[in-house]
Amino acid sequence: MSIQIRNFIVILFCNQCGASVDSLIPPGDALLRAVCSKCGHIHYENPRMIVGCIAEFEDKILLCRRAIEPQYGFWTLPAGFMENGETTAQGAAREALEEACANIHLDAPFALISIAHINQVHLFYRGHMKEAKFAAGEESLAVDLFKIEEIPWDELAFTSVRFCLEKFTEDKTRHCFSFHETSLP
Amino acid sequence: MSIQIRNFIVILFCNQCGASVDSLIPPGDALLRAVCSKCGHIHYENPRMIVGCIAEFEDKILLCRRAIEPQYGFWTLPAGFMENGETTAQGAAREALEEACANIHLDAPFALISIAHINQVHLFYRGHMKEAKFAAGEESLAVDLFKIEEIPWDELAFTSVRFCLEKFTEDKTRHCFSFHETSLP
Repeated sequence: MSIQIRNFIVILFCNQCGASVDSLIPPGDALLRAVCSKCGHIHYENPRMIVGCIAEFEDKILLCRRAIEPQYGFWTLPAGFMENGETTAQGAAREALEEACANIHLDAPFALISIAHINQVHLFYRGHMKEAKFAAGEESLAVDLFKIEEIPWDELAFTSVRFCLEKFTEDKTRHCFSFHETSLP
Repeated sequence: MSIQIRNFIVILFCNQCGASVDSLIPPGDALLRAVCSKCGHIHYENPRMIVGCIAEFEDKILLCRRAIEPQYGFWTLPAGFMENGETTAQGAAREALEEACANIHLDAPFALISIAHINQVHLFYRGHMKEAKFAAGEESLAVDLFKIEEIPWDELAFTSVRFCLEKFTEDKTRHCFSFHETSLP
């Protein structure tokens, strides 16, 4: 789950003609955009989605220990940037396969988290594994199953992952899962 | 709700140095990216989010008649591209203000719709208006309140809007709202 790249690229040149861009508010718009000084092409930039899952096997949750920055060595849920051409569910399943070599059967959307200052929206599903088959993918140092009481709370990589695991723990305790939404500062 | 722009721009030049780009799979990646032939900058492209709402006043729903293409003249829910620096809820409220000059109090996320072939994810909230105060914004020909039996089903602009209104009608009928997810072809 590489959540801190891709977001803060300043556009300097037009991707259509290669000329320099100006930062200005186009007619009928309300926000500054990078507008080509030559061909006028407007470069819209919008938030990106991170998709992932809380995958259970029996009474345990699948976590990955990060092999990449940011938060190298910390634990996270399998998740990553949603790609063009896929659905949110396909993206979440793909990330679990890439990071944890695990086939996840997704059950339902579980949490939606806006992180406005880094232009991201995180979406996590609940899911389950039919067998305890997993391994560390390229971006993971280790992958393991954790009972709720074993979750390494002090070694979690991201606040969105913490939010998810807290809500999951609460819902699991009362045997009732709902959909959770929040925004993180 | 301008859902068919911004999505199919082919990147031809590097936005960091203005040189031409090549389409290739970077080391450690699995997908073709536009990679700068000179500075090596990788241009990631990801799905964009459309955020909107089903806003009620008493037993009526707020709809906007589009003053822009695509689907000029058809009815839609207030919605549009989520912008950097805002949360999904802030984006949904902003779009209602822009398109319908309406202040919406958002209640809960209602529907999440992946439309993979146009690289979009649509998120709709349920919300309500405290007074019947609205007007056509710049992108709307008209804005009006519709009882469920008055919804112009044959003149709806988008399949995601239809999905939302169908699910809303079902949930409303049984007096129980849940969160709905789907993908549209």
